Amino acid sequence: MEWLLQKWVAAIAYDGTTFHGWQKQCEQATVQAALEQSLARVADHDVATVCAGRTDKGVHAHAQIVHFYSASDRTEQQWMHGINSYLPKSVRVLGVRAISEDFDARFSATARHYIYVIENTPVANPLNVGRVLWVRQQIDCDLLSAVADSWLGEQDFSSFRDSQCQARHPFRRLLEWKVYRQGASIYIHIAANAFLHHMVRNMVGVGLCVGLRKKPVTWSKEVLAARDRSAADVTVAACGLYLHKVYYPELYKKSLPAVELDLAMRRY
Amino acid sequence: MEWLLQKWVAAIAYDGTTFHGWQKQCEQATVQAALEQSLARVADHDVATVCAGRTDKGVHAHAQIVHFYSASDRTEQQWMHGINSYLPKSVRVLGVRAISEDFDARFSATARHYIYVIENTPVANPLNVGRVLWVRQQIDCDLLSAVADSWLGEQDFSSFRDSQCQARHPFRRLLEWKVYRQGASIYIHIAANAFLHHMVRNMVGVGLCVGLRKKPVTWSKEVLAARDRSAADVTVAACGLYLHKVYYPELYKKSLPAVELDLAMRRY
Repeated sequence: MEWLLQKWVAAIAYDGTTFHGWQKQCEQATVQAALEQSLARVADHDVATVCAGRTDKGVHAHAQIVHFYSASDRTEQQWMHGINSYLPKSVRVLGVRAISEDFDARFSATARHYIYVIENTPVANPLNVGRVLWVRQQIDCDLLSAVADSWLGEQDFSSFRDSQCQARHPFRRLLEWKVYRQGASIYIHIAANAFLHHMVRNMVGVGLCVGLRKKPVTWSKEVLAARDRSAADVTVAACGLYLHKVYYPELYKKSLPAVELDLAMRRY
Repeated sequence: MEWLLQKWVAAIAYDGTTFHGWQKQCEQATVQAALEQSLARVADHDVATVCAGRTDKGVHAHAQIVHFYSASDRTEQQWMHGINSYLPKSVRVLGVRAISEDFDARFSATARHYIYVIENTPVANPLNVGRVLWVRQQIDCDLLSAVADSWLGEQDFSSFRDSQCQARHPFRRLLEWKVYRQGASIYIHIAANAFLHHMVRNMVGVGLCVGLRKKPVTWSKEVLAARDRSAADVTVAACGLYLHKVYYPELYKKSLPAVELDLAMRRY
């Protein structure tokens, strides 16, 4: 009865600390495995999921987007509350919506938006362990901001590509690199049509070398131009990275789950 | 050579999640045990600590205050960086200062200030697990605020006192009960000259019953007047509670460590 299959889209937040990344792997706890196990219990059949952006071990998500098929008759609320009741607390489904067949969580996405958080303080806040990269030395935000001037737009990002990267080609379009300091933390917003493996963490690594004045700002341009991973082998820790938002074409806007995660936290 | 002993004061932040509270206990991981082990390594002798407010299992601290004695010649920076190098990442010393003999972290304190954080959202944020109490049902902040009208000032808080409480008498002076909503979270600031065992968590429990309209606001006054723990046996989870600040007389102000912990977090 395959013609009764309905396509669904879900928005999911997670704390990546205890997971070996998004993607299913034998014998490892992954977000996808946890999600598909819970989905199977609600659906009463095996469910495969496709996500917008596969996150690495230790990387968090504010709103990962996932699609799946099911032949089971469930409402959006039943999916959401059902899945959440079986998931570990470190993963939450924020919303589930029925969606048209042509939507694909991965291939319909036009852009991915990540945030990298650096805690730039003399002493690390113990309540932020696993949530930020702690850097004790003073970072120059203007320099950290300027590194990306030569990176924006369509580029060959081979220098920021992990050797394990399985992408067909190294071209990506960098749409945003916004840096600001708020209190003792520095936030880097990075958006691109898509990312190569470790691309964000390699870019932030280069940015930090410049922001800490270990390298001149011109170095970031040289690294890009080298088109060679060995030009700058600096990958920052996964724990400061958040998949913040995935963008889709306007036509899907009304069909996607409204993401309710409140990110304004800790203002005493 | 006891006359060479110097008294020191330290400000300490911690994530209480993995600890069985502040106080040393056989075979249990506690904040005090972790701190004293690290202190002993830096001091090269056993060190005993006295804190301003003993926190329960799972309770966090933004700035716990501790005093200790040492006969070892160390600078403030040596203490701080030395202790932090041996501590687990879930505990950080924010500052250490030499202090006069008459100062006592516990008995000199004039007030303790706690914050209780409630996440009042349809779906819990997985990145806040162990940091907040998640309540799905809509809480009325005005009601939650009004419960304390009858509690302020010097009162017999027997109704909010755990059966294990070792305090000599049940009288405490409640100085502040301030409630506000910021984004999806509700913050309750609670200050008193001192607290009985579980007093904050019992008060918040009563507040929540009223804020969720399970009880009328007059009930909070009745609970206090009963002077009996069985009047309202509602204790909220430890994970939403933070020892935020300890107050000392003006004369010590310049001698205490400047607390550098940045609490303005997660504003994207």
